[in-house]
Amino acid sequence: MDTKENPRARPGWLGQLPKRVDVYEVGPRDGLQNELRTLPTRDKARLIDALVAAGEKRIEVTSFVSPKWIPQLADAEELLRLVGRREGVVFSALVPNLKGLQRAREAGLEEAAVFISASEAHSKKNINKSIAEALAGAREVTVAALHAGMRVRGYLSTVWGCPYEGEVPVARVVDICRQLVDAGIYQLSLGDTIGVGTPRQTEEILEALLKHIPVEKLALHMHDTRGTALANALVGLSAGVTTLDASIGGLGGCPYAPGAAGNLATEDAVFMLHGMGVETGINLDKLVEAGEIAQELIGRKLAGKYLQAALGEREKKASRSART
Amino acid sequence: MDTKENPRARPGWLGQLPKRVDVYEVGPRDGLQNELRTLPTRDKARLIDALVAAGEKRIEVTSFVSPKWIPQLADAEELLRLVGRREGVVFSALVPNLKGLQRAREAGLEEAAVFISASEAHSKKNINKSIAEALAGAREVTVAALHAGMRVRGYLSTVWGCPYEGEVPVARVVDICRQLVDAGIYQLSLGDTIGVGTPRQTEEILEALLKHIPVEKLALHMHDTRGTALANALVGLSAGVTTLDASIGGLGGCPYAPGAAGNLATEDAVFMLHGMGVETGINLDKLVEAGEIAQELIGRKLAGKYLQAALGEREKKASRSART
Repeated sequence: MDTKENPRARPGWLGQLPKRVDVYEVGPRDGLQNELRTLPTRDKARLIDALVAAGEKRIEVTSFVSPKWIPQLADAEELLRLVGRREGVVFSALVPNLKGLQRAREAGLEEAAVFISASEAHSKKNINKSIAEALAGAREVTVAALHAGMRVRGYLSTVWGCPYEGEVPVARVVDICRQLVDAGIYQLSLGDTIGVGTPRQTEEILEALLKHIPVEKLALHMHDTRGTALANALVGLSAGVTTLDASIGGLGGCPYAPGAAGNLATEDAVFMLHGMGVETGINLDKLVEAGEIAQELIGRKLAGKYLQAALGEREKKASRSART
Repeated sequence: MDTKENPRARPGWLGQLPKRVDVYEVGPRDGLQNELRTLPTRDKARLIDALVAAGEKRIEVTSFVSPKWIPQLADAEELLRLVGRREGVVFSALVPNLKGLQRAREAGLEEAAVFISASEAHSKKNINKSIAEALAGAREVTVAALHAGMRVRGYLSTVWGCPYEGEVPVARVVDICRQLVDAGIYQLSLGDTIGVGTPRQTEEILEALLKHIPVEKLALHMHDTRGTALANALVGLSAGVTTLDASIGGLGGCPYAPGAAGNLATEDAVFMLHGMGVETGINLDKLVEAGEIAQELIGRKLAGKYLQAALGEREKKASRSART
């Protein structure tokens, strides 16, 4: 679709938005690793099937961390066998070290994701390594993965703020990003891990990064903890960012309490993108079906707003037609 | 606060944001009129007290429509007697006709709000009048209110879309807005009544309106039904809009189902504004207290994300300190 066919894709205050945006789905990994109850592998596969059926093309399905750390994802190999390969879909997984990479390779994955924190305190708490140690490890994994013919994505967390240190200097973010890109990752996902980002700050962070890193290498991983995920994402789109991380129904992303929000909900992102004439290749109605499955599997309502509105609207229609 | 003192208020992709934004609180009216259960007048007064304590300066407290239509707000006079006058705070109320205006005057209100729909079908369904009839009525009320020394605010609903007609032509929106402004309203609040707006559309609507109406006369009344309220509000701020309508905890705004979102939550708006260095005069912690009171009064969780995050964080801290 070019600008002529799509009156909403023309420049204005928002500037020229990308014609197409990729959604990188993190629900099965980031979402389910935060659940207290471990889901049966076949249920995880069912959720992934529904995401693929909705047209999602990039899905992080699991993590090859030690089962001691995250027992919820101990079935990584079995899950990948169950879901198999899908035409045009790239499955990826978190890989913390060379051992994890070896498992990911043996499971036939084409893509691995490494992760670093932009805050020393968060890095120590999360993986018991300094930033420098974590960077050395991520570089080692990246080089080995590229050597094995895989592509590598990087996550940088706490970019908008750290729960222990507060604000994180942008210069440090730029420095870490440059090192990861130099190591050979194809994309860097900037994470607002605790959901404290606001649009002016997003603008500042992107402005500093774009002096050193091409925009197509950047993705935004915004949390909706305080309702600002889409507003922040919009700043990114307006700056040319073409990948948004999101999670079905808003699953995961360390919400503070049941009912509180974590990750940006995939449906909310896709609704906004389609409303602006930006293509995603995703079917919003089928995404709602996937969200419903996610709710059924974890046994509670998710925080995604589009999902709740769509399910509420359907219920209303059903009760109306039951009366007539 | 000027730009020099506030590094976040400088121009960039977002442009120069306003230094200060007024929040127009609609929770007590728009929120409570949608509740099935009528709250006792003293409970409504308690909620309004909490909003004033948080620093809110513009609060729509009730409606002078016929109690036959909205029994939840039949206690308008009694409520206004209970809350009295507050230094620096302007209370207002919805006024559908001259009879309502008379009641508002006798109750000592300084401000009235008239309302129009931008969609014929919605206007018919909502108030059983055509747009032309509703406009004539709103002009009549406005002239009488100005004559009585009151100021008048206008609401235009379904600007981003109508539940019966779908898309609403921007030219019609511009035409109605001009007529209301010509009649003497001091501010026009543009409503995304069903929460279908996305940022490019907001840009188009504002672009068309700003050719005819000064930006200081416009307010945005965004619904967060599909999660896009703050992204839309951001486009407005970037275009110079300095008033956002919001509702404590996201109360009201015709949510489809319990748990679904309606109005933009005041806390979410204030969090984003403060995060960008935009002043509101509102204390966010006290707003959370008001949100907690709102939840207590209506007996369920509200959809506001900041509120749920703040309450969840507090619970977590409390359970941590109980363990030590």
